[in-house]
This record gives sequence, C-alpha cells and structure tokens, in this order.
Amino acid sequence: MAEHHNGSGQGRLYVVGTGPGSLEHLTPAASAALHESDIIVGYRTYLDLIKEYLVGKEVVASEMMKEVDRCRKSLELASAGNTVALVSGGDPGIYAMAGLVFEMAKDAGSSCIIEVIPGIAAVNGCAARLGAPLMHDFAAISLSDLLTPWPVIEKRLIAAAAADFVVAIYNPKSKKRTEQIVRAARIFLDHRDPATPVGIVTAATRENEEITITTLEKLQDADIGMQSTVIIGNSQTYIWEGKMVTPRGYADKYELK
Amino acid sequence: MAEHHNGSGQGRLYVVGTGPGSLEHLTPAASAALHESDIIVGYRTYLDLIKEYLVGKEVVASEMMKEVDRCRKSLELASAGNTVALVSGGDPGIYAMAGLVFEMAKDAGSSCIIEVIPGIAAVNGCAARLGAPLMHDFAAISLSDLLTPWPVIEKRLIAAAAADFVVAIYNPKSKKRTEQIVRAARIFLDHRDPATPVGIVTAATRENEEITITTLEKLQDADIGMQSTVIIGNSQTYIWEGKMVTPRGYADKYELK
Repeated sequence: MAEHHNGSGQGRLYVVGTGPGSLEHLTPAASAALHESDIIVGYRTYLDLIKEYLVGKEVVASEMMKEVDRCRKSLELASAGNTVALVSGGDPGIYAMAGLVFEMAKDAGSSCIIEVIPGIAAVNGCAARLGAPLMHDFAAISLSDLLTPWPVIEKRLIAAAAADFVVAIYNPKSKKRTEQIVRAARIFLDHRDPATPVGIVTAATRENEEITITTLEKLQDADIGMQSTVIIGNSQTYIWEGKMVTPRGYADKYELK
Repeated sequence: MAEHHNGSGQGRLYVVGTGPGSLEHLTPAASAALHESDIIVGYRTYLDLIKEYLVGKEVVASEMMKEVDRCRKSLELASAGNTVALVSGGDPGIYAMAGLVFEMAKDAGSSCIIEVIPGIAAVNGCAARLGAPLMHDFAAISLSDLLTPWPVIEKRLIAAAAADFVVAIYNPKSKKRTEQIVRAARIFLDHRDPATPVGIVTAATRENEEITITTLEKLQDADIGMQSTVIIGNSQTYIWEGKMVTPRGYADKYELK
C-alpha cells in the first residue's frame, strides 16, 4: 500500500460520524476528514448515504456485523502510513465505532494518530424530529444483550425509570430480539403513568423516516425496528400539537424572566 | 415588520443548534436555516461565533439570562410572518432553547411553524475530544438547581452512580454555585473506585479549549468552569495514551468477530 503513504510518515485514522442519514446533517469537519482521506472504510449501508464522498477514493465496504474486521483493517491501513476514514452513522462516540478502535489500537500497539470527528447522533436527530423531549436529565440505554448481560440492562432501566430520567432507548428491537422492549415498557409502567408520552423515530432524516407518538401503555404495540430510537418522557413530558415536550425545570418555568 | 413577511404568509421559527463553537461543526442544515432567515436572534456570545452568517440580516442580540425574552421575541417575529432563526450553542434539543420555545408557543397560542435543527451537543463534542467515553449506557445530569430542586438532582446522581452509567455532567459549576460538583463526586465515590477516570472539557473545539483527564478522587480539585462538561467513567472505563475509553460491552469484546 506504499502508494497511499502520506507526507508526514505517520498515518492517521479519522473515525468519522456522518449523522443520522441526510447529508445536510454531516458537519464540515466530517466532510473535510472524508476529503482528506485516501481510503474510506465502512459498512455498505452508511457508505451508500455518502456516495459523493467516495469518488476517487479507495473504498473498503463491508457487510453488517463485521465491525471488528472494519476496525482492524482501518488500523492496519493507517498504521502503514495512510490517511484513513472509518465511517460510522450517527456519532461514532455514542454506542458506535470509536471505542472499538481505541480498544483494538491498544491491543495491537497501533502507531497511527486517531481522531474522532463527532456527528449528529440518533439521540440528537430523533429528539429534534419529535420536538423537545430532552430538555431535562436523560439516560441512553441500549437493549442489545449481545455484549451486555440482561441483568445489567434491567438494573439501568429500573434506575432510570425510578429516578424520573427521560430515556432514549437504543437498539430497541431486531428481528430476533423482540422481548426486551416489552420488558422495558413493563419496568417503566411500574414507575410512570401509563399515559406518559413516548416518541419513536425510525430512519431519522432519511427518505423512509417515520415518526410515531404514542404512550407508555401502548408502546409494545408500536411499529419498532432496527433503525428505530425510542424516547420515553419523564413525569412532566407532554404532547402539544404533535410535538413531545419536556419542560426544562420542575420549578416555575418563567422564573428566569 | 411587514417588510419581513415571507411568501407563504405563515411565519417560521428555526431553533438552530450551532454546535460546540468551531464553525466546522455547524451542519449544512443549520447553515441553510441561518441563510434562509430574515432575522437572527441569540445570546451575544453565540452570535459572535457565527458572525459570517449575520451579514445583511436583522440581528436581535441579548445578554446572558434573557432566555425567556429571546424566546418570546422570536415567537412574536415568526408569528408576524417572518422567517426567524433562534440560535442556540450546542444542540437546542439537549438542555437548551427548544423546550422553552414550545412551552411559550403553547401558552401564547403562537401560529408559526417551529422546526428544531439539531447540533453537535456538548456531550458529543466533549466525548470526541476525550476519546470514546460514551460507548455504553450513559446519563446526562445537570447540576444547576435554579429550576430543579437539589433532592431531584441528588436522586438521579445516586441512581446513575449505582447502576454504573457513564455520566455526563452539565452545568457542573458557576462562580456562585461551587458545592454541587463536590457533592456529586462524593456520591460517585460511594459507588465507584476512586481511580475511576474523569474527563473534563472546557470550551470544546474553541480557541480556548482545555482538556483534563483526572480521577474521581481528584475531581474536586480540578479546574472546572461554566463552559465545562464533566464525564465520569463507568466501572470499565480506562485511560489509554491520554484517551478515555469505555469498552462497548461487559462480555468478550471481540465476540462479534
């Protein structure tokens, strides 16, 4: 790969967040990192969303569930002196590729420079589409028990429900994994009004975007998929003209007047 | 204000997130909303960061703590038929202006269209600068007790600490409010190793950016200000070559290989 060596000798790996989908949410910093890179590595679905950035680049596309391979390849290419962009949908720093890159760089003793370029995460994008659900303390919890034992996840759901956090649920459901969201809804029903607003955004900002506003008691009947993020309101959250709004305080809201 | 009426008759209010500071993190969607607006409303410090967008616009700049006035003015101008951008640093959807806009629009019966344009929030920007601390479930908690009683905040700190969430602390300290971060550190010390990594980012991505990596037991001695965000690691978080890394799972990290 000698043809990709950059001037300085030391390679560089950008871990780039491309946002929720639409290019209008891809930051200039992410754009610059993609332009500067000789090689772009990513999951095929995310690369399809940034096609215009791939022209003239070496592209290493991979299929779902090859995260470890993508990270390893990116680190190898960057350690050989290349400038590499490893693409991540959303924000690579929130439940995404940045952590695995550092974990594997540590284990492999990689010598490249690693820089994380933040992106608009699902939590930011979905909140904006729903209205203003994250105006007060919130927790993000993934329901995927692939790498985390269910009792750890359940403990967090209970803690967040009991302490009245707004909660953004990542990985609520997949084809094989359908029970967790039902259990999560039950946990919240132990602590919150059944009428508590719940927002579901699927494929935020993409052509196939779907926005659903429902309630905690109806959550288990809602259409939820792998591209969905679910936001459960706190005790103060309400719906106004189709928007989900969490007041910013528990005291008089105009106190700062 | 008849000269600002737009073609469609109905006014529009964009609540625009400008990101952590550097314009390289302001999205094209935010940029387009600013360009499209006739009037730009914001806190002076944020407007100074986006000077180039203000040329040829009517600008309504205000000082700190006039949030309610800024929202009211923006809603009035948009309801009169103007296209207005209300500017918010970070992401207007995370502890910022979006909620107050909807609250006040509801109370005033405002007729304008309201659209939230998400931005790179402090939590995204600071995580990227620190490495990869948010790879697992996390909570965002504000220590400001101006609109929220301290017992509510304390309950959430305890819940998040006990359930091993990574925690991003917003509004950790101001000139007048210095005790809360000390109390928060004490709560976490009841549940986590004193050597737990803590990252502090002040003025992320701006010229005066400062990044500190410390530990839970030394947190109260750290230099923290109004522009700081504090991220406390979970039980698995470690430091590698100056980066704060939370592993993405509790099981074998290469399981997905």
